[in-house]
Amino acid sequence: MAQVPHEPEEPAVTAASYAEIQQFYGRHMRAMDEGRVEDWTGDFVPDAVFATNARPEPQRGRAEIARNAETAARQLREKGVLRRHCVTTLELRQGGPGPTLLAKTYALITRTVVGERSELEFVCTCEDVLVRHGGRWFIRHRQVFRDDLPES
Amino acid sequence: MAQVPHEPEEPAVTAASYAEIQQFYGRHMRAMDEGRVEDWTGDFVPDAVFATNARPEPQRGRAEIARNAETAARQLREKGVLRRHCVTTLELRQGGPGPTLLAKTYALITRTVVGERSELEFVCTCEDVLVRHGGRWFIRHRQVFRDDLPES
Amino acid sequence: MAQVPHEPEEPAVTAASYAEIQQFYGRHMRAMDEGRVEDWTGDFVPDAVFATNARPEPQRGRAEIARNAETAARQLREKGVLRRHCVTTLELRQGGPGPTLLAKTYALITRTVVGERSELEFVCTCEDVLVRHGGRWFIRHRQVFRDDLPES
Repeated sequence: MAQVPHEPEEPAVTAASYAEIQQFYGRHMRAMDEGRVEDWTGDFVPDAVFATNARPEPQRGRAEIARNAETAARQLREKGVLRRHCVTTLELRQGGPGPTLLAKTYALITRTVVGERSELEFVCTCEDVLVRHGGRWFIRHRQVFRDDLPES
Repeated sequence: MAQVPHEPEEPAVTAASYAEIQQFYGRHMRAMDEGRVEDWTGDFVPDAVFATNARPEPQRGRAEIARNAETAARQLREKGVLRRHCVTTLELRQGGPGPTLLAKTYALITRTVVGERSELEFVCTCEDVLVRHGGRWFIRHRQVFRDDLPES
Repeated sequence: MAQVPHEPEEPAVTAASYAEIQQFYGRHMRAMDEGRVEDWTGDFVPDAVFATNARPEPQRGRAEIARNAETAARQLREKGVLRRHCVTTLELRQGGPGPTLLAKTYALITRTVVGERSELEFVCTCEDVLVRHGGRWFIRHRQVFRDDLPES
């Protein structure tokens, strides 16, 4: 094997971490998709930053993130839209120091109105900095990039 | 961390279980998608119940589940349709007592006729009660909810 | 449990392997999707074979695989297309002898031009023979099957 163009990340992340983070996203995305905004918001640290190319400015702090999420959830409810965040293709790296992980995912977001066909609404990449406190993981920084929107 | 709105599930489910259940779905969904209905049916316990909002009544027992699956598989074959159940966003919780897990997944179901473009046919959530016998997992109860159909 | 139509694979593959291979695909697919063709190509052993029903003949060796991948990446760049390989539904089996795994996945490939809606471009199944050298995994043989194309 003459040439190894990039280093593997495998040794650095345990199977336990990998399973925990997949669980984390399973719970986190369902919370949003089922309209449990408070549960979803609770997955961010209080001073988390959430940047996305769908907004001109990053959202700073759990309170602001919660306000925007509640607005979005209410709009979906009013329009009768079911949205699913289907998370795929997780890649984890050790951040650090301390129990910090960098998690990259692809999300396929579907949109359905009962009686109509489900649609792929948009595709995004998500890069999270995850930190561990008190036996569970939280989001410290999120960068979402929607493929269909220009860089903000 | 003043506030933890919902409890984490991570400590309760091991990485080993998480990998086993992902394997289970990998095998289970391929069995159906490749038309191996007997293999797919063998993943249910004999008295399993399979409820879905695509049918007015739950299917009770492996024999009834098998009959319906064979009909569905034959119809796809006759129409030349390839269907894939793409499983994402697994969330596992301990059921119990005994070796029982509650597994929630999102499935993106695609439909393809050779020579035509692949389509997202429907999106569903799946909640399974999985039990372990003789070194492997089986489905005891399945609840599928298709986003595009009304609650039955 | 009278009847077990097919044998489980669970005991044969450890959670560690399962996590490593998911990591592998996370890194591998991002390399291609971000246009880092050299990184992507480096995931193949030098004499790897890559067969797909999208080409009449298998590609033999890393150099040929790299040439075709560079052409594809350039074409996407020139058209301003973002493509994502969303990997789902992993099933792993021990190959062997030696540290060899057979990995089956479903990939949902999305296509996006900024300012337009993301689309499901195609769906494929992928069967890889993976081998371990020097602490990481490589692809020795890949068989991709696009659902929308005839068997080659």
